[in-house]
Amino acid sequence: MLTFAQFGAGRIGAIHAANLAATGATSLRYVIDVNAAAATALAAKYGARVVDQSTALNDAAVDAVIVASSTDTHAALVIAAARAGKAIFCEKPIDLSLRRVDQCLAAVKQARVPMFVGFNRRFDPSFAALQARIAQGEIGRVEQVIISSRDPGLPPLAYLKVSGGQLRDMTIHDFDMARWLLGEEPVEVFAYGSCLVDPAVGQIGDTDSVMVLLKTASGRLAHINNSRRATYGYDQRIEVHGSKGRLMAGNRVATTVELANSAAVSTDQPLYFFLERYAEAYRAELATFVEAVVKRKPMPVTAGDGRQAIVLAEAAVKSLRTGRPVRLGK
Amino acid sequence: MLTFAQFGAGRIGAIHAANLAATGATSLRYVIDVNAAAATALAAKYGARVVDQSTALNDAAVDAVIVASSTDTHAALVIAAARAGKAIFCEKPIDLSLRRVDQCLAAVKQARVPMFVGFNRRFDPSFAALQARIAQGEIGRVEQVIISSRDPGLPPLAYLKVSGGQLRDMTIHDFDMARWLLGEEPVEVFAYGSCLVDPAVGQIGDTDSVMVLLKTASGRLAHINNSRRATYGYDQRIEVHGSKGRLMAGNRVATTVELANSAAVSTDQPLYFFLERYAEAYRAELATFVEAVVKRKPMPVTAGDGRQAIVLAEAAVKSLRTGRPVRLGK
Amino acid sequence: MLTFAQFGAGRIGAIHAANLAATGATSLRYVIDVNAAAATALAAKYGARVVDQSTALNDAAVDAVIVASSTDTHAALVIAAARAGKAIFCEKPIDLSLRRVDQCLAAVKQARVPMFVGFNRRFDPSFAALQARIAQGEIGRVEQVIISSRDPGLPPLAYLKVSGGQLRDMTIHDFDMARWLLGEEPVEVFAYGSCLVDPAVGQIGDTDSVMVLLKTASGRLAHINNSRRATYGYDQRIEVHGSKGRLMAGNRVATTVELANSAAVSTDQPLYFFLERYAEAYRAELATFVEAVVKRKPMPVTAGDGRQAIVLAEAAVKSLRTGRPVRLGK
Amino acid sequence: MLTFAQFGAGRIGAIHAANLAATGATSLRYVIDVNAAAATALAAKYGARVVDQSTALNDAAVDAVIVASSTDTHAALVIAAARAGKAIFCEKPIDLSLRRVDQCLAAVKQARVPMFVGFNRRFDPSFAALQARIAQGEIGRVEQVIISSRDPGLPPLAYLKVSGGQLRDMTIHDFDMARWLLGEEPVEVFAYGSCLVDPAVGQIGDTDSVMVLLKTASGRLAHINNSRRATYGYDQRIEVHGSKGRLMAGNRVATTVELANSAAVSTDQPLYFFLERYAEAYRAELATFVEAVVKRKPMPVTAGDGRQAIVLAEAAVKSLRTGRPVRLGK
Repeated sequence: MLTFAQFGAGRIGAIHAANLAATGATSLRYVIDVNAAAATALAAKYGARVVDQSTALNDAAVDAVIVASSTDTHAALVIAAARAGKAIFCEKPIDLSLRRVDQCLAAVKQARVPMFVGFNRRFDPSFAALQARIAQGEIGRVEQVIISSRDPGLPPLAYLKVSGGQLRDMTIHDFDMARWLLGEEPVEVFAYGSCLVDPAVGQIGDTDSVMVLLKTASGRLAHINNSRRATYGYDQRIEVHGSKGRLMAGNRVATTVELANSAAVSTDQPLYFFLERYAEAYRAELATFVEAVVKRKPMPVTAGDGRQAIVLAEAAVKSLRTGRPVRLGK
Repeated sequence: MLTFAQFGAGRIGAIHAANLAATGATSLRYVIDVNAAAATALAAKYGARVVDQSTALNDAAVDAVIVASSTDTHAALVIAAARAGKAIFCEKPIDLSLRRVDQCLAAVKQARVPMFVGFNRRFDPSFAALQARIAQGEIGRVEQVIISSRDPGLPPLAYLKVSGGQLRDMTIHDFDMARWLLGEEPVEVFAYGSCLVDPAVGQIGDTDSVMVLLKTASGRLAHINNSRRATYGYDQRIEVHGSKGRLMAGNRVATTVELANSAAVSTDQPLYFFLERYAEAYRAELATFVEAVVKRKPMPVTAGDGRQAIVLAEAAVKSLRTGRPVRLGK
Repeated sequence: MLTFAQFGAGRIGAIHAANLAATGATSLRYVIDVNAAAATALAAKYGARVVDQSTALNDAAVDAVIVASSTDTHAALVIAAARAGKAIFCEKPIDLSLRRVDQCLAAVKQARVPMFVGFNRRFDPSFAALQARIAQGEIGRVEQVIISSRDPGLPPLAYLKVSGGQLRDMTIHDFDMARWLLGEEPVEVFAYGSCLVDPAVGQIGDTDSVMVLLKTASGRLAHINNSRRATYGYDQRIEVHGSKGRLMAGNRVATTVELANSAAVSTDQPLYFFLERYAEAYRAELATFVEAVVKRKPMPVTAGDGRQAIVLAEAAVKSLRTGRPVRLGK
Repeated sequence: MLTFAQFGAGRIGAIHAANLAATGATSLRYVIDVNAAAATALAAKYGARVVDQSTALNDAAVDAVIVASSTDTHAALVIAAARAGKAIFCEKPIDLSLRRVDQCLAAVKQARVPMFVGFNRRFDPSFAALQARIAQGEIGRVEQVIISSRDPGLPPLAYLKVSGGQLRDMTIHDFDMARWLLGEEPVEVFAYGSCLVDPAVGQIGDTDSVMVLLKTASGRLAHINNSRRATYGYDQRIEVHGSKGRLMAGNRVATTVELANSAAVSTDQPLYFFLERYAEAYRAELATFVEAVVKRKPMPVTAGDGRQAIVLAEAAVKSLRTGRPVRLGK
């Protein structure tokens, strides 16, 4: 049994705690959250105790931590957990500042602890199958990747203000997917961003609609489109073109029911949002982390992957600001 | 907490035990099975004890039983459980003999215990939504129902020999679906049956391919087609035609991945068999049973429903034997 | 250039005349119709002359005739055309009376003229491809055929009264498809028919909703469902199950446009009715007839095929009347 | 009857001549082509005469010309036809040089003749319906347009060398679609181009794989991806996102046949190339031109549209060369 302490008892924390329990191979010993009520409720549900950070990290019985608290707390927790010798599962992003991310990576490296960054989409059954089939050579050499990623609706402005902006908060997932599917590191990024959904987003200096292009050294190309609004539900689609064919993965639906009547032929909309669409992905990523810790296998998503997505997001932000494509350094 | 005893620790028993645990509202106290090893393993997994039938039924702390043992044991267990005052969840069919089924129904009626028959397909998210949308009037008055239900492959001959034959073992699910969707009781049945998959099936007097028609008093029509072989996976589709339109529900797939290459455009096959396709249905039916027992709500699938499907199967068997349509009695 | 006389200048006649012109290998010399205005208009459009039957049939320059007049005139025209030595393209059905059909076949046989019966669906690109792929062995040995064939709306009662009834007028197409796809002659037929769409149909002794089963000598099974109403358009689908897989062919749509919004995901309805759905089939069947006449190739749909569909329809009518399955004679 | 002279008797010329004939409202009087054999064959087929350019343009009976000769001859023919007072249907592009295009536009303006540029995709039934539904407000205000346009295979290098390059030869269609669907003029263009399909393309200074972004003044965004190779056929898809929903239009297939077997579930590939996919579009665009000339209605695709697509292509070429986004002038 792997013993966990979990930082964060909010919406995503609740998912991770439930998935931990479902692995049948872990126990949740501690829950830590600034919101005492949330911490208490979650701890009670899984037989854990509410403690403070140092109690949790100083307990030698704790093998691993889940960092699912607010983004601004991630870096300090990662560093502290690394120093305490714990295996780390960290929600994305590690931090909005690349300097702080590098401090985390240094701490993790020094402590030689395993660290996993929660890019859940890699564990979506359809996206995982798509990537595996590319890896098996089904479409030959990858040439172009097209990622559509559109949220059903705007989050609260209060959230947006601390989110780091659409490219760091939302596109970051797509940067990771693009890297993962291109099979080569992007060397240049170009981004357009607009405020089309709600002028209030523009007033706080953010965008709600972006289109991005990426280019690798050998000339492979990727496109990402994002919107903070999709009236029909969470739109998460990927297509990859290779020298021998095309692989696509689309949205999931709750039922296969189709109605045909005098008005139209209609089917279900995509599952509403990430909790529904990526329920299986959340389960699979945590099970993968647990297995990798237990069996001392390499982490399938590393702190370095977490860093690289942030590097791409920073470059895209700079492209948006300067109106120019941005070369990535070595 | 509702306390359960479960009869049967085989494949379907394992599913029910897991789903019981997942409800979070039940405890499994006893497991009973002629296969001691299976019983012990399952009991161990859920903190239950292996006992004999009378111990389980005589324990006043047991609120409900799951009857998931072999078909020939169902009737005796239902009757005993009813006399012991337990709520009953019984796998289909109740029994292959209508006389025995009626004895069960009488015992249940006399004991005034709730009984649920496990027609899991009613709880498949797609079929449940289809039926709910008919009930909401989306397609007006139902006129025709078409059910395709095809297994991926032949079960062992040893199983077929005790199965009661294809119409009683396989089509019985479809008879239940037809009744449920037609919104009226069938009054006549006609069946054709052939042995096309494997001559060995014919040699034991069974069929592996059937087509059935049903008619209700007002003239509504239903068609069922079955095969014991579908090379592409478990084929489970329904379409319902009404005065205002058509509702269809199709197969489920593991991923949405589509490959286009120089050979074809191809997608996933249907989920392989009932364990995969109806995983959600099994969860939902048990949760529904538990809730109905706890809240003393009417059972959504009753012993009477179980009986009626058997009546239709018997009539279809008679049609097959006589080569004539068979009228159903009052 | 093959020279034609065409009997019938109505809706279907207009289609055949246009398709004749489009072959680029024929000339239409005569149009004959009791409706002088229709005949004149059609003749003018294609540079033909309006004449009476004997003028047309006595002109040695006429190589072939199209019989697209009302059903009750088909037999006499076929017999007269055969005696005049013309190649014959005859709309289905040849006649509603099997005795008259046999007289036609005898006349055609005696005159040794080629005759084609217009079962247009065999020339639908999707159905033709489906049949060709069965013939190529893609799904192994055929086991079950399922045909859904549903009209968008009721024809006028005046038409229904002289139509011969739903099984002879509508299902006849499906009987031909079933024979063609089963790869064996049906030896028994069972039919249910109801009046669910409009009571007026029942008052003239007809049905508007039927379900039929067919069985061949080796036990292959087919199902046909028909309705005179489909609010969503002309519903024409076929599925064939074989020992190695399943082939399906569905409806055609005018556009591939899909709308996703807050209400649903919706696509086009099936093409409205036979003129739209089978436009390509009408072109292909006539081109095939012309080529077969010119190159003295065997007709792909023979007078015998026309007869056999009528035999099945008669058997189904008898089944409906007697409530019993009907064996077909040798 | 509108009388035509047609310049060009090649592949696309043959399509236009056939479609002219099919309108039933035109006569083709002259065919002009440097390839005498091609001109003679086409003229013979439609009862036209082979003449030289001046004979055709000086004949006052000629109402309109089709310019379907090689691209380098378009401009001179357009100017000469305009001066001769003929209505002009010109294949895209008008010319590869913007200066020459402007000379054409000036000549057309001065002569006050109607001119149509053959952006056939606007007349594809699916794309036309998509645009009409946007115009009807079905998805509210347009926000993002995504165009996938991929050819089945590389054209001969000899063609590529005189094509003006991928952005001018291939993407030009997509630039027109983007303008048409965005509902606003792009004000900035950014392009990436690579040589991934065949190094020989790079050796002649061209690309075979491009990704483009466009931005309008109000911030609407468009993405185009192109490849000179799609092993699965001609890939032509569009999606448009608006404030109220998403509209998509996909590929067309020859048949609706679906095969399910032990390997996969597979369907037809997209129609092979533009002749198949856009057959209906070619018919519709010419019929629209004829009707607009006859009824003196405004041209739905103008010389100005032709020019604007070239402006976008030039800007994209400059972006590719400079590695920077390019602002469009007033």
